[in-house]
Amino acid sequence: RQDPYPSRLPKEHWLPRQDRTVWSQWRPDAPLTAQQADQFDRDGFLVLKDLFTPQEVEALKAESAALRGGERALMDDSVITEPGSSEVRTIFKLPEQSPLFHRLASDRRIAGIARFLLGDEVYIHQSRLNYKPGFTGKEFYWHSDFETWHAEDGMPRMRAVSASLLLTDNDALNGPLMLMPGSHKHFIACAGETPEDNHKSSLKKQEVGVPSHEALTSLAKEHGVTAATGKAGTLVLFDCNTMHGSNGNITPFARSNAFFVFNAVSNRLQQPFGAGKARPDFLADRGEPNPVAIQTGKLA
Amino acid sequence: RQDPYPSRLPKEHWLPRQDRTVWSQWRPDAPLTAQQADQFDRDGFLVLKDLFTPQEVEALKAESAALRGGERALMDDSVITEPGSSEVRTIFKLPEQSPLFHRLASDRRIAGIARFLLGDEVYIHQSRLNYKPGFTGKEFYWHSDFETWHAEDGMPRMRAVSASLLLTDNDALNGPLMLMPGSHKHFIACAGETPEDNHKSSLKKQEVGVPSHEALTSLAKEHGVTAATGKAGTLVLFDCNTMHGSNGNITPFARSNAFFVFNAVSNRLQQPFGAGKARPDFLADRGEPNPVAIQTGKLA
Repeated sequence: RQDPYPSRLPKEHWLPRQDRTVWSQWRPDAPLTAQQADQFDRDGFLVLKDLFTPQEVEALKAESAALRGGERALMDDSVITEPGSSEVRTIFKLPEQSPLFHRLASDRRIAGIARFLLGDEVYIHQSRLNYKPGFTGKEFYWHSDFETWHAEDGMPRMRAVSASLLLTDNDALNGPLMLMPGSHKHFIACAGETPEDNHKSSLKKQEVGVPSHEALTSLAKEHGVTAATGKAGTLVLFDCNTMHGSNGNITPFARSNAFFVFNAVSNRLQQPFGAGKARPDFLADRGEPNPVAIQTGKLA
Repeated sequence: RQDPYPSRLPKEHWLPRQDRTVWSQWRPDAPLTAQQADQFDRDGFLVLKDLFTPQEVEALKAESAALRGGERALMDDSVITEPGSSEVRTIFKLPEQSPLFHRLASDRRIAGIARFLLGDEVYIHQSRLNYKPGFTGKEFYWHSDFETWHAEDGMPRMRAVSASLLLTDNDALNGPLMLMPGSHKHFIACAGETPEDNHKSSLKKQEVGVPSHEALTSLAKEHGVTAATGKAGTLVLFDCNTMHGSNGNITPFARSNAFFVFNAVSNRLQQPFGAGKARPDFLADRGEPNPVAIQTGKLA
């Protein structure tokens, strides 16, 4: 099988991106302006404010609190806790466990944008509710999601986009998502073989599939590092190959978001390109792609 | 002995500040403007840009690199390394080990401001060169310096000021100093007895002498959290009782500063108020106060 993005080899190496970033031709009825589409193409991410009404945001925050607060039965294996504590850090399979988040994931303001960017019907590759507590929020080290999704999940091409809806106000000091604008144009094939069941530790602390200090320094010097900040309700969209990470957070202010990865139906998963066994279903949907039926109008 | 700021007791409690913050009456020949003095009084800190010339900043950066790079013999016990690595994190007793940093610490733009704020001759209570590497810079948890200096070093009153000269560009993302403006007006007496030789671990990770999550949340909600950012050469002054800390830093950009604590000669150390044995000399000068002879003109 030909592999356009070989990784997890003995030595780190760089390849140019082989795929487009924006797969549709812009038209006046697109869910982004032409300028926003160009910005996503250039930077590999886009921050959109005020897409949702305050009422919608309040309803999503209440739903999030109910899910994290143990008021709902949750599927086995869908919950990850903070290292060294029992606080809920992540709940996977979000639309499957919440009608409101299912509606959110189908909304034209999220899935419609993803369909436009990817130029195809889209399905949900992964979804989660993230919660990073104040005081003890741990860092998440630099990585390209695509590197992992390709190597460990068998995603063939760079034709997926992540959408993170902020559910708390995020400023530069409470551990926001940091991105290197333009980094999505380089594929950094990471050194080292994938250990068996790597995801069991990598969800808490990523150790394989991370670029070297040299590569990150070079990327950061070329592209800079910016933070995706905004009030609750802000939507952050980023390409599957944009280098990102986040610092820890000693401030009292927690950070939370609802996170959906959309993949093009034509880009469905194959066997992993850089690992033995594929990761479990809650991390990467391996079933028949189920295209999102896009909804319009208010969420709540 | 009467103790105006009892701490390290079984329960945390709050006391109002018993001391002034700015001890001099402002006059036109003061080294700060009246507005800057008022701002320091209100916020408990002040960020001053462009006090030093680019040549001076370059000379200080070169001197810092020489000290950290092992080109100079350094005093025993004056060097602290990063947890889990051999990278130099801190060099204490800075003026004693470097003529240029001795000159800096005596400068009117630093010591002159300290003398004005404290309304007394000043001496150096503690000094250090801090270096927080990129990628692996660890967080430093919230604390008031005065709480430790009072409990563990025997500093009687709040009449000391810290001056941090940035030697790298610090933005909001590479683990800058964070402060809670106005927090210096409250003394938060911390719960728990001081362990023997607490400083041996507290320099790497503070565990005693830190406020509770509840206290920090209350302070942060009342006062907010701001970062002291600026280009290399920026001077950050903060009162001994201002609540501060810093996040870790996964960016490739290191952070470094030269740090001097000035104490009023009338506020010289006594026996510790909340610990058995006083801490060693490199952390707290216990000798006869040696007033700084203030210098004017260029450093280099």
